[in-house]
Amino acid sequence: MNTFSEKSLNLQVKLQDFMDQYVYPNEQLYRHQLNSAGNRFAVLPLMAELKEKAKAQGLWNLFISDRHAEYSDIGGLSNFDYAPLVEIMGRVTWASEIFNCNAPDTGNMEVLMKYANQHQQHNWLTPLLAGEIRSSYAMTEPQVASSDATNIELSIQRKGDQLILNGRKWFITGAMYELTRLFIVMGKTDAGHPDKHKQQTQVLVPKDTPGIRIVRPLTTLGYDDAPVGHAELEFTDVKVPIGNILLGEGRGFEIAQGRLGPGRIHHCMRLIGLAQRALEQSCQRSTQRTTFGRKLSQHQSVREDIAKSFAEIQMMRQLVLQCSAKMDEVGPQAARDLIAACKISIPLMTQNIIDRCMQLHGAGGLTEDYFMAEAFNYARWCRQADGPDQVHQMALGKQIIKAYASVSGGKDE
Amino acid sequence: MNTFSEKSLNLQVKLQDFMDQYVYPNEQLYRHQLNSAGNRFAVLPLMAELKEKAKAQGLWNLFISDRHAEYSDIGGLSNFDYAPLVEIMGRVTWASEIFNCNAPDTGNMEVLMKYANQHQQHNWLTPLLAGEIRSSYAMTEPQVASSDATNIELSIQRKGDQLILNGRKWFITGAMYELTRLFIVMGKTDAGHPDKHKQQTQVLVPKDTPGIRIVRPLTTLGYDDAPVGHAELEFTDVKVPIGNILLGEGRGFEIAQGRLGPGRIHHCMRLIGLAQRALEQSCQRSTQRTTFGRKLSQHQSVREDIAKSFAEIQMMRQLVLQCSAKMDEVGPQAARDLIAACKISIPLMTQNIIDRCMQLHGAGGLTEDYFMAEAFNYARWCRQADGPDQVHQMALGKQIIKAYASVSGGKDE
Amino acid sequence: MNTFSEKSLNLQVKLQDFMDQYVYPNEQLYRHQLNSAGNRFAVLPLMAELKEKAKAQGLWNLFISDRHAEYSDIGGLSNFDYAPLVEIMGRVTWASEIFNCNAPDTGNMEVLMKYANQHQQHNWLTPLLAGEIRSSYAMTEPQVASSDATNIELSIQRKGDQLILNGRKWFITGAMYELTRLFIVMGKTDAGHPDKHKQQTQVLVPKDTPGIRIVRPLTTLGYDDAPVGHAELEFTDVKVPIGNILLGEGRGFEIAQGRLGPGRIHHCMRLIGLAQRALEQSCQRSTQRTTFGRKLSQHQSVREDIAKSFAEIQMMRQLVLQCSAKMDEVGPQAARDLIAACKISIPLMTQNIIDRCMQLHGAGGLTEDYFMAEAFNYARWCRQADGPDQVHQMALGKQIIKAYASVSGGKDE
Amino acid sequence: MNTFSEKSLNLQVKLQDFMDQYVYPNEQLYRHQLNSAGNRFAVLPLMAELKEKAKAQGLWNLFISDRHAEYSDIGGLSNFDYAPLVEIMGRVTWASEIFNCNAPDTGNMEVLMKYANQHQQHNWLTPLLAGEIRSSYAMTEPQVASSDATNIELSIQRKGDQLILNGRKWFITGAMYELTRLFIVMGKTDAGHPDKHKQQTQVLVPKDTPGIRIVRPLTTLGYDDAPVGHAELEFTDVKVPIGNILLGEGRGFEIAQGRLGPGRIHHCMRLIGLAQRALEQSCQRSTQRTTFGRKLSQHQSVREDIAKSFAEIQMMRQLVLQCSAKMDEVGPQAARDLIAACKISIPLMTQNIIDRCMQLHGAGGLTEDYFMAEAFNYARWCRQADGPDQVHQMALGKQIIKAYASVSGGKDE
Repeated sequence: MNTFSEKSLNLQVKLQDFMDQYVYPNEQLYRHQLNSAGNRFAVLPLMAELKEKAKAQGLWNLFISDRHAEYSDIGGLSNFDYAPLVEIMGRVTWASEIFNCNAPDTGNMEVLMKYANQHQQHNWLTPLLAGEIRSSYAMTEPQVASSDATNIELSIQRKGDQLILNGRKWFITGAMYELTRLFIVMGKTDAGHPDKHKQQTQVLVPKDTPGIRIVRPLTTLGYDDAPVGHAELEFTDVKVPIGNILLGEGRGFEIAQGRLGPGRIHHCMRLIGLAQRALEQSCQRSTQRTTFGRKLSQHQSVREDIAKSFAEIQMMRQLVLQCSAKMDEVGPQAARDLIAACKISIPLMTQNIIDRCMQLHGAGGLTEDYFMAEAFNYARWCRQADGPDQVHQMALGKQIIKAYASVSGGKDE
Repeated sequence: MNTFSEKSLNLQVKLQDFMDQYVYPNEQLYRHQLNSAGNRFAVLPLMAELKEKAKAQGLWNLFISDRHAEYSDIGGLSNFDYAPLVEIMGRVTWASEIFNCNAPDTGNMEVLMKYANQHQQHNWLTPLLAGEIRSSYAMTEPQVASSDATNIELSIQRKGDQLILNGRKWFITGAMYELTRLFIVMGKTDAGHPDKHKQQTQVLVPKDTPGIRIVRPLTTLGYDDAPVGHAELEFTDVKVPIGNILLGEGRGFEIAQGRLGPGRIHHCMRLIGLAQRALEQSCQRSTQRTTFGRKLSQHQSVREDIAKSFAEIQMMRQLVLQCSAKMDEVGPQAARDLIAACKISIPLMTQNIIDRCMQLHGAGGLTEDYFMAEAFNYARWCRQADGPDQVHQMALGKQIIKAYASVSGGKDE
Repeated sequence: MNTFSEKSLNLQVKLQDFMDQYVYPNEQLYRHQLNSAGNRFAVLPLMAELKEKAKAQGLWNLFISDRHAEYSDIGGLSNFDYAPLVEIMGRVTWASEIFNCNAPDTGNMEVLMKYANQHQQHNWLTPLLAGEIRSSYAMTEPQVASSDATNIELSIQRKGDQLILNGRKWFITGAMYELTRLFIVMGKTDAGHPDKHKQQTQVLVPKDTPGIRIVRPLTTLGYDDAPVGHAELEFTDVKVPIGNILLGEGRGFEIAQGRLGPGRIHHCMRLIGLAQRALEQSCQRSTQRTTFGRKLSQHQSVREDIAKSFAEIQMMRQLVLQCSAKMDEVGPQAARDLIAACKISIPLMTQNIIDRCMQLHGAGGLTEDYFMAEAFNYARWCRQADGPDQVHQMALGKQIIKAYASVSGGKDE
Repeated sequence: MNTFSEKSLNLQVKLQDFMDQYVYPNEQLYRHQLNSAGNRFAVLPLMAELKEKAKAQGLWNLFISDRHAEYSDIGGLSNFDYAPLVEIMGRVTWASEIFNCNAPDTGNMEVLMKYANQHQQHNWLTPLLAGEIRSSYAMTEPQVASSDATNIELSIQRKGDQLILNGRKWFITGAMYELTRLFIVMGKTDAGHPDKHKQQTQVLVPKDTPGIRIVRPLTTLGYDDAPVGHAELEFTDVKVPIGNILLGEGRGFEIAQGRLGPGRIHHCMRLIGLAQRALEQSCQRSTQRTTFGRKLSQHQSVREDIAKSFAEIQMMRQLVLQCSAKMDEVGPQAARDLIAACKISIPLMTQNIIDRCMQLHGAGGLTEDYFMAEAFNYARWCRQADGPDQVHQMALGKQIIKAYASVSGGKDE
């Protein structure tokens, strides 16, 4: 039933080979380069090198949808065909960037494909597609519950041919990164507009524009996610030309709506890769350690943990594939029930699976000697990314109640 | 990605119509006939009537696999194509029998298709396929942990042309039922055989054979599951001709192995139907009741429960479909990892979903006014049926550990 | 730290002896008498006999609080001292009645001690204290969310010296029971009163008053809880003299408030007894059954289940004792945070512990051969009794948020 | 029922005042000093200063048991009386050190009180009690499952008057810390001894002894727990005089047994302080943030989370108190069932409570702006500290099964 295209199947093989040959053997080197870097947010030599290799092998920009085939060397992929590729890359938290398939750049490139004019595309989309620069999506603000996008407060005022931005953002992924050149900033151009969804505008802001202050990198559970990182930013009288508006004034909310769906799914696909890898390593560990006279693998409780985790991973993977197929068929908007189902289920399930797997590894499982602690942080963080789970549960619950409230068959009287 | 055949899709529509027209409107009548019957294990007039209707509409023996197409009027169905049909029937706990698709008869008929000789088929399979009689599968014994089939103790001794059975069985589904004529009994013909899997033999035993005592009906969580029921049985010098041996002496374990996989999946499919129905009714209920100034449907906690249940049902359904497709492709034996994944996940998840839904219905949710309490019992009971979950977790865990213990890519050093 | 009085300690020993000598050995007989009774709601001979024995031994009316010492032969007990006694009785679902300590009569007697006038006490409290009759508390209604007592709709109209009751009640525990003579009925005398808490009145209604129809017994999870049972009732022009008003017109809500706290705690204490007993039996079972070459007690997963259940039982018991001590010190109203904490935690935890223990017993664990399935139903049902957990979580959450919202020390800035 | 002594109650007040006056207001300063330190494992000026203040106020060495009253200025405290003090200190992860009450020094000092000779006490216990130096307990080894202490491999060979140590340790808390001078090292002096519990010896090893290499600090979930930290150590021909043996050759296991119980409980007490603080802050947060038109505090799901967390904290606290009282009465060995119950319940429950509270704080809840992420790490790490929960579940399960296997009353037949 999971029938991937020939193209996807071939790419799966090539990608797996690439991971085996170049990524897994370099995990220690990556960590070493990062930890010995003077600036934790500089480009790592290894990354630069691997990107060239991936490009040379045609493992590049795999994220591009078949709807935007013109931007893709390989003609684009459906969500369904792309899913297993994301899972393979996702097994190493930093690997997606090698293939120009990392968040938030994929989402940003998609936004530019859909909404940017030619001039904007030339300036920003082209170097992003080439992997020469990186970008950030600046939406969340520290002082308001940003999961409700109508709460956003950063002000964008027009003055002649210029826009002037004032406000504060945080959790701006990639903003610390040396390679990042562009911020797509969401703010309010018309806070008084009676339609609450027409107050917002999105603007392209070069990172080096005067008035932008990078306040600090943020950590989650002790991780700074360097070199990409998450930053807090301050905008003080930041000026950009009016031509930097994306799509049109007052259409920022519309863009935000269009952007987020697939991104949530990509996070989920990566998490499944991490959960799967944690499971595999736990199986290996359980055959290598002995306690109280028997191998871990022979303890019934270990077998139960492994069995449960296996079943949960199957379910998560099938849900993501079902969701991907639905997005392919009817578009992300009509598939938002399944997107929400993924978002509220998979990060939490992954967190629990990895928690179990860490426990199976003893105290070492919590350290940097294994990938799991960092993966745990990624899963935990995804329960807040793109809005806390609770907001998506609210929306999904409301939608489902409405859908079933009037179903007839089989009601009890 | 879930692409059902034309045949399956047509049957889904017809079946749904049948449920809407004849089953849901008769749920109260069914309960009434049952509760006012002199003998709770007699055939209900409604059932007899509905079976005729179903047969007339060609909604009959849908369970027959395409591998046994010769027994099917419609040419058999793959597991994948059959799955949605089971879910539809499963929404009412007693409905499967209408379509001759109920446990344990489906499993028994399959056994007879695969292993019975012509004479045996004539005597038992033919009337079973016609729905004229019912059957039981007598395996579990009260005094031993029967999930390990090698523990079975009922003795089958040969004396001339006869077999003499002595022993005790329990949880023999259908044995109480008036319509039941046949017991397929597993026992030991050669308890001393060095190969523990060759000691067992399965024998066809007419229910009215002298020496069989129906000790009592058993209840689970207070339910007797009448009219089908679960019985405790005693065999005292029960004699059957030697020709009643199925497949061959010492091959009982082999039959047991072949029988159980699909049955587990069918339970899971039915449970999904029940979970789905409980979700739908909860949505309806939540729009009808008001507490503390707002509709239930407007409470965030209710929406979260609904959203979680929806996501879990999606995952369960996809897992069952994946498992069905794998069974179709490589057979139940090679798909035993996914069969086990279903078995250990779906009954428990369904139990929890229904528990949530009952809670949403207030105290009434626990009563006979709703189908949920009985469905809860079915889900709970399935965590023991065909062996407790723990046994399947053990086997699955062992298999997965073995499979991944030597995977190379992406090991931490 | 759990220092019980000499009186309590002595009663604990006596009660335990009584259970060992007269109750445990008669559990089968009780079930037999019940199942062979012509009327499932008749008094069982065994119960009548045991009540006499308990009375003779001074194990009678132990529930009476030291605040109402005048009604008690032994001078009353504090909640703290009473708690371990309830747990001991609670180990057998039907045992509390032996000692005149069963719900809902204990709560009803307390109401009569606190609010009834001398005449009312003479008529009803005296025979209740003697165990000669039983009583019901009729509050919940099928058509409204009764956890919000202001929703109650049964109408009580005054006509001359009489009150006329019209309405419907359900889940009226004890109403089916042959021995029951009295209903304490909550209804509305003044549905238009501007203060929503002054609309209600409680009235003493003899069960045999014309116009009362016992519609049916209700089941929960398949159990009818006979002989006590839960009934649906219909009141049609039921007439009682005006002197049957309890405390005063418009004070029904006030009585309801005063009644419920301790009752919730008693349910919890009994549940702890059941959980403890299920744990003990699981320990015994685990040393008696062997699967796959080792005793259940040697499987790591079994040990983990046992260890978890033990720890949870300790926590539940300490919470109940803490709550009891607080009720003794400051009264139920001021202890309502801990009462709610018990109510939302202990039934659910007990349900889960018993679920685990049933699973350890194989399929048999779900049957009537063990006490666990019925105990499971009791725990499940308690999550709705006295209002669904969610209502108590709402109230408790609100109270805690208020209490801590302005705490100063250790706020993050 | 929780009746603390006058002494404890007075100390509770003083300690709370100290926290309010000196600790909470300095949390940012502490973080600042740590993050701007050249060496993350140096003594922080703030800590040095606060220690003097605490000493001056008599809030010093509160951990000393009343059994070792001679070492205490205030005559020692029972476990029960000490418990609420640990909770108060525990609300800030680094605060216990201010009062000389931090792990692992408290456990080490207790070991020295119980087992060291006068000379050893003079050298090490005296400066430890004065807070002049810190110490580590070096037991866990990376290459073996160290929760089974008989697996320890570090070799201690005698050569003349000297002991020569070779081996590797990790997770040695405090070993990185500048102030640390002493390692208590567990190793094997007689690996061939037929009694597996007589092979081990504990030796006092000055941190600056040649041959000791601090390989690296370890992180858990991204935290290095600086300045105290957890180190990996290598011992290569490390020589100490024979007089450094603690208690006697071959008695290392005996010391290990005696050491661990109370330490586990102290971790639990601190965790309860953190859980309580997280709950309080969540209550405050919920009244300050608004989403979708209502305050967080008005969402039913938020109230349910708060209510659940409150109830769980009550249960954890009561369990710890019960355990403390039992240790006071019968000693840690006889109270090991409750110690294990705390160990397997409280870290996990705290992890879950804090997880909920972080989620209530939005993405910010995961950052260093709140204390919760670090507290989460502490709770998670405690599920491995002193052995993984599973090992304690195994031991506890075994003990409980044995205890109840032969209980008579109330067995089902």
